[in-house]
Amino acid sequence: MKIPLAELVLSSLGSSVNADMPTHRRIFELIRQAILNHQLQGGSKLPSSRNLALEIGCSRNTVIAAYEQLLAEGFVEARIGSGTVVADTLPSFALDNIQQVDDEAFSALPRALSVRGERLTHSPSDKNFEIQEFIQGANDFSVFPYKIWQKLQNKAWREPQSAFMDYARLGGYAPLKEVLAEYLRVSRSVRCEPEQILITAGTQQSLDLCANLLADANDMVWMENPGYWGARRVFESNDLHLRPIEVDNDGICPTPADLQTAPRLIYVTPSHQYPLDVVMSLTRRRLLLEYAASVGAWILEDDYDSEFRYKGRPIASLQGLDHHNRVIYCGTFSKVLYPGIRIGYMVVPQDLIEPFRTGLADIHRPGQMAVQAALADFIQQGHFTTHVRNVRARYGQSRALLQHTLQNQLLSTTRLSNADAGLHLVIHLPDFCDDVKLAAEARLQQIDIRPLSAYYVAPPVTRGVVVGYGYMPLEQIVPAATRLADLVNRHMVMSHQPVLV
Amino acid sequence: MKIPLAELVLSSLGSSVNADMPTHRRIFELIRQAILNHQLQGGSKLPSSRNLALEIGCSRNTVIAAYEQLLAEGFVEARIGSGTVVADTLPSFALDNIQQVDDEAFSALPRALSVRGERLTHSPSDKNFEIQEFIQGANDFSVFPYKIWQKLQNKAWREPQSAFMDYARLGGYAPLKEVLAEYLRVSRSVRCEPEQILITAGTQQSLDLCANLLADANDMVWMENPGYWGARRVFESNDLHLRPIEVDNDGICPTPADLQTAPRLIYVTPSHQYPLDVVMSLTRRRLLLEYAASVGAWILEDDYDSEFRYKGRPIASLQGLDHHNRVIYCGTFSKVLYPGIRIGYMVVPQDLIEPFRTGLADIHRPGQMAVQAALADFIQQGHFTTHVRNVRARYGQSRALLQHTLQNQLLSTTRLSNADAGLHLVIHLPDFCDDVKLAAEARLQQIDIRPLSAYYVAPPVTRGVVVGYGYMPLEQIVPAATRLADLVNRHMVMSHQPVLV
Repeated sequence: MKIPLAELVLSSLGSSVNADMPTHRRIFELIRQAILNHQLQGGSKLPSSRNLALEIGCSRNTVIAAYEQLLAEGFVEARIGSGTVVADTLPSFALDNIQQVDDEAFSALPRALSVRGERLTHSPSDKNFEIQEFIQGANDFSVFPYKIWQKLQNKAWREPQSAFMDYARLGGYAPLKEVLAEYLRVSRSVRCEPEQILITAGTQQSLDLCANLLADANDMVWMENPGYWGARRVFESNDLHLRPIEVDNDGICPTPADLQTAPRLIYVTPSHQYPLDVVMSLTRRRLLLEYAASVGAWILEDDYDSEFRYKGRPIASLQGLDHHNRVIYCGTFSKVLYPGIRIGYMVVPQDLIEPFRTGLADIHRPGQMAVQAALADFIQQGHFTTHVRNVRARYGQSRALLQHTLQNQLLSTTRLSNADAGLHLVIHLPDFCDDVKLAAEARLQQIDIRPLSAYYVAPPVTRGVVVGYGYMPLEQIVPAATRLADLVNRHMVMSHQPVLV
Repeated sequence: MKIPLAELVLSSLGSSVNADMPTHRRIFELIRQAILNHQLQGGSKLPSSRNLALEIGCSRNTVIAAYEQLLAEGFVEARIGSGTVVADTLPSFALDNIQQVDDEAFSALPRALSVRGERLTHSPSDKNFEIQEFIQGANDFSVFPYKIWQKLQNKAWREPQSAFMDYARLGGYAPLKEVLAEYLRVSRSVRCEPEQILITAGTQQSLDLCANLLADANDMVWMENPGYWGARRVFESNDLHLRPIEVDNDGICPTPADLQTAPRLIYVTPSHQYPLDVVMSLTRRRLLLEYAASVGAWILEDDYDSEFRYKGRPIASLQGLDHHNRVIYCGTFSKVLYPGIRIGYMVVPQDLIEPFRTGLADIHRPGQMAVQAALADFIQQGHFTTHVRNVRARYGQSRALLQHTLQNQLLSTTRLSNADAGLHLVIHLPDFCDDVKLAAEARLQQIDIRPLSAYYVAPPVTRGVVVGYGYMPLEQIVPAATRLADLVNRHMVMSHQPVLV
């Protein structure tokens, strides 16, 4: 080293770099950098702590602290008789196999994603498919009973139990599974015992477990076409082979050709098809159950927003009709409480309880027990039922207003979906419309809608826009719907090529 | 139907089954069941609502409510001129392709897990590898500042923002990423800007994203042997090819043969090898970084418990030494705060920010923004630093007591690991010991330790037991360690076959 270490340290301590660090830390960093830059070579000796301390005018303990850290991290060694020397950092075993290349060559090496990584990320869904925003801006969660929720969470933390701090075991907090089983039996006609329930971090995690534990790479999964992009992403990330199945007014509608090759998984949204806003007919349900049982396929029932049915009771679950234990029922609190809660659940047949508990614990390491406890209280004390009733009334009003406004103002060549359920509806458009372009135009005007064609796994697509209204303030519905209708009408008029006679 | 419907309904209403349901719901359920059991055939007519109401003595609205739900769910149809008739539930399209089998044949169909599902679940890790319990019983989280944590969570819910209710965007809550970047720079010598950070639901999720976005099925990942079972599970669930790499006292130690075939991913625990309790040497670190850069591999640095270093400062991260942006740094709050918090983080190179944000959003749909906000305050207000200092002191005491007690009492044929770090240590045993049997014996005496041999991905294994002490009440350490030493000594004496001269 050309410059004596003490001089280097002194000049560094005088500078403003790292001035907020304690002195021993600054000395440590300086020497560390000098070793990494090869200013200090392997084998060279550091001054004794006493001498360095004297030269730079600090306490010896300060220098010792720096040296000890250098020692702990392997930058220096304490050699008997020679004091502290810079460690010889040449690798201790043959590096012949490592092709030595310079920094530029390194940068030229491919930094590519995996094939599945490319597939998953080349068109981000997050911005393009999230339908909860119809108008850009903050969502409205004003119906949510903050005070009660805060109180219940407080309770979980006021009497802290170590079980609340720990990982979740056995599929989740037992009292939550109890009240949930009861709710699902009564409200959703799901046939289940509490032990069949697994609390997950949401439907994505539930589906991921199914895709992983029940299917192998290249196994076939039926996807509703159009269908839920989030499920698609999970199946793609698990290397499944997606087979798009048409959806008509009765729900998923496999052709005889589809039925020829048995899938391993069948993913459906029977209570309220996403995004087409139709309910699966009883006929179709029974067909699907019979078929799954006869070919040994598993049905993944995604019941994501069944609480929101504005006329009559919610449609009974597919799972409740199944006599062959082929259905895995997935539910979530994302829609009925709030998206960020990250609590969902699945109901699995008895013979899958053990493997699913193991898979959940080993792959995902679930936790969030305090939130699970608050949620159990929330349901058990009746707040959940009250809240469902409140939001159902609220969202029902929004839907009615939106439907009414759009119906009155849209041109008759459009068609509105009318399931009277959920948090979104579809404006179907004639084939000559470019729904992607329409959505882009709308976004410029702060109207955040999604092109229906983008939800298709494969062509042919139909055209339309998906409009979410769940979290929009009620008073904004009519003016926003008016602007939307105007925009859609203008788009149709502009894009329609008159047929020349 | 042989029995008139009214009679059936009356007898049902008289029974105690579903007695807690409203009458319209009971009528609905009864008719639904009768249709599903084929007691009521497709096409048969239901009595008019007026007549049924008269016969069973309830209001007509009650019957109408039941009929409307049956209609909504597709069990009945309203036919002009014939009133309400049971729907013809024969599938509307060809079922010729569905092989009709009876219920018993259905049950005989394979209900197998997938190949990867079998691999993942055939030996559950959850119970066998969780090392935090050394004694069975509740863990001790008494050092945790409940009051402050409760207060900060309360704050997030007192001024509810819709952003706290929503999904997490752009990799997580921005203020948390800010304070975390600062912490990682200062405490862990990680080179990062806040935008390089992604907040995940823990290290499992971080590793899953890496395995998915950076590797394809059958790509090779280097696993430390022995190594962390949780990482192994995640890689297995992503169909990666595991190559076990030996670990010596300097950390991961690839042989020339290992270096011949470039892996796609290299998973390491440099600051504190899990479970061997050794620190990766600087030489080994530089070798690994050079090698990864030269072959275009990604290093996944799992820095799971680096806060717990009881002498000197924490070891600097591997990421901080990397000049080729080949390291993805993964951290967690599971160890330093509490396991169930489900907040971890990863620091990715600049060119991976976008794909990783997309992958995280699309596959996992993250949320928990209120907890993220509380955590940001917790760090920003200095509570985190204080807490780390407290638990470090506390766990340091536990470790010292445990080491001291074991050293004094264990036979000299054992060897204790001595990294002065982390929440566990290893008692190395002679090869003739059966550590699996020893752990089973210990469990009978409420001592919960793990066999070292079980952490190996492939043979040859070394024998020992892994002892976690992090969450054990301090006053229990000495008596428990005494019992443990006694057990280990007895096991060694019993299993040692004297060499006959």
